[in-house]
Amino acid sequence: MAHALRLGARGLGRTWPNPAVGCVIVKAGRVVGRGWTCPGGRPHAEPVALAQAGAAALGATAYVTLEPCSHHGRTPPCAEALIAAGLARVVTATGDPDPRVSGRGHAMLREAGIAVTERVLEAEARTAHAGFQKRVTEGLPFVTLKLAATLDGRIATASGESRWITGSLARRAVHAMRMRHDAVMVGVGTAIADDPDLSVRDLGSGHQPVRIVVDSLLRHAPDSRLGRTARQVPVWLCHGPAAPEAARAAWAASGAILLECPAGPDGLEAEAVLRRLAAEGLTRIFCEGGARLGAALVRAGLCDELVTFTAGKLIGEEGRGAMGALRLARLAEAPAYRLASLDTVGGDLLARWQRL
Amino acid sequence: MAHALRLGARGLGRTWPNPAVGCVIVKAGRVVGRGWTCPGGRPHAEPVALAQAGAAALGATAYVTLEPCSHHGRTPPCAEALIAAGLARVVTATGDPDPRVSGRGHAMLREAGIAVTERVLEAEARTAHAGFQKRVTEGLPFVTLKLAATLDGRIATASGESRWITGSLARRAVHAMRMRHDAVMVGVGTAIADDPDLSVRDLGSGHQPVRIVVDSLLRHAPDSRLGRTARQVPVWLCHGPAAPEAARAAWAASGAILLECPAGPDGLEAEAVLRRLAAEGLTRIFCEGGARLGAALVRAGLCDELVTFTAGKLIGEEGRGAMGALRLARLAEAPAYRLASLDTVGGDLLARWQRL
Repeated sequence: MAHALRLGARGLGRTWPNPAVGCVIVKAGRVVGRGWTCPGGRPHAEPVALAQAGAAALGATAYVTLEPCSHHGRTPPCAEALIAAGLARVVTATGDPDPRVSGRGHAMLREAGIAVTERVLEAEARTAHAGFQKRVTEGLPFVTLKLAATLDGRIATASGESRWITGSLARRAVHAMRMRHDAVMVGVGTAIADDPDLSVRDLGSGHQPVRIVVDSLLRHAPDSRLGRTARQVPVWLCHGPAAPEAARAAWAASGAILLECPAGPDGLEAEAVLRRLAAEGLTRIFCEGGARLGAALVRAGLCDELVTFTAGKLIGEEGRGAMGALRLARLAEAPAYRLASLDTVGGDLLARWQRL
Repeated sequence: MAHALRLGARGLGRTWPNPAVGCVIVKAGRVVGRGWTCPGGRPHAEPVALAQAGAAALGATAYVTLEPCSHHGRTPPCAEALIAAGLARVVTATGDPDPRVSGRGHAMLREAGIAVTERVLEAEARTAHAGFQKRVTEGLPFVTLKLAATLDGRIATASGESRWITGSLARRAVHAMRMRHDAVMVGVGTAIADDPDLSVRDLGSGHQPVRIVVDSLLRHAPDSRLGRTARQVPVWLCHGPAAPEAARAAWAASGAILLECPAGPDGLEAEAVLRRLAAEGLTRIFCEGGARLGAALVRAGLCDELVTFTAGKLIGEEGRGAMGALRLARLAEAPAYRLASLDTVGGDLLARWQRL
């Protein structure tokens, strides 16, 4: 199952709206088939592994990181394919997160006389499928917020200088993180200040996540790096009802996708934006700031995970903070996160924190 | 030598103005004497170990974490004692940092026919004796600055609520750090806001560091926790020439020590304060803030080490920052620190950073 989880992880960021599943078929102690969900979400992991196993699947055991699907969608149900191949046993890590169909895949297999073992490495599988699970059960994507700051929590000097706070290895790690997400998202302030490209570079990967700007009034310019490359790699602009028609037309002409979202008193409503993105199929979003968008997500309880890069530098209180206003009345209201992992990248510290 | 370094570390914070040295005497593979500098700095480590070894010191090897002293001070020179005891060999970790006497201890031993090996675990010994070394060579104490903040670098909410950002285990670790320093230091803002006691509690230790407030105008009240306990554990107030006579008298009556230091345009001159404290004998100072005193030390290049506790919480930009103004013109001027160690304490992250 650990092997199947590693195979499944290869698809992270590439299989939306489907989950990134891994499958290993073992017969008499030998791996006879391996598969993972293909880019775009099809074919699923199981048919890929079954095709590789061929006749060797007869009487074999399949390890799958998610309960095999039981319904006819754009592909025939994987449970049927496993039955047809004559598997003797199927081991799964976690059930289908959709409560309407959860358990049916396992039931189909058992009805066909296949031995089924559930919940092997379930915690790891739930982490791997957290984005798919959240989209299916809550209609929201799993959001990871990146903060890259100095020891005193600053992301730029008073004059806005921010290149570079962290080292080149940390920036490379950010590219690897982008690659494992369906989309990279920034607020309009960051888009205008940095004119970022938000692409995955120098990792030998053909995959590029969708690039999203949350830009209520479409203030970001279509002749920016994002606008100029919107036909090569998707750019989605989440804007509000008040975005000027001329800006909408210019962005549409650049090849970007425009998603109109409801606006609240502080700009776009963060939850409405994420619901719209989940409805478009996104399961895992990597938010790279800025301070205002990050704070809006945190305030609304929509930030599932924080990734912090800390550079061994000090900028002082004149510098710009990593996090915008949270409007806490008391310290006890401070959003709390649990340290999940800790590492060093070059001279910088890298920590992952999960929402409590 | 590793054993001798561990023994020497027992004296950290207690031996000023002397170094915290460790000594182990070994004969035929057996430890026959162990010593470390006693509280107050005397007796030194070597005579303690020699007394324990007695006649067994004849022909033995002594491992000492610092070159034995060669001059008649308040104690007879340790080099003489080692010669008189008939040691065959002396191994040292590092030389006497005072360039005026460095090498003389080793020379005395060699002249007496003792085999001398130098620089064993020298890097570790230099770290252990960094405070003594800096005082002797630069006339300044070694300063460690503690920052305890949230993921976004905040130490309190907008209303000043700061209890507690970090968990109880992190606070306990802070007490252990206080214990290994000659003095704990805070600025007047922190003293007034928190009314701290700055003592070592709940660690079964009889040792208490000197408690220092940098308070240019003596605004901190003598009926504070520090003032009320100044006769039990020393309190030193670094104040400026403009401190009112009434406040000086009230603090002196509480039993505190008053140290007048020169003032500059921003309050007391940080370097002058530290020079005065080194002149009083302090070698290792643990600064616990606040943001303004910390920034003054950092700006003046006087902060040798940072200890950061990071709690998995967010407060947002309205919160108070961990570091005051640094007045950087460019990012390249940002003071830089190298990650020296990384740990978790309870749910908090603990990192040590050394000045580059």
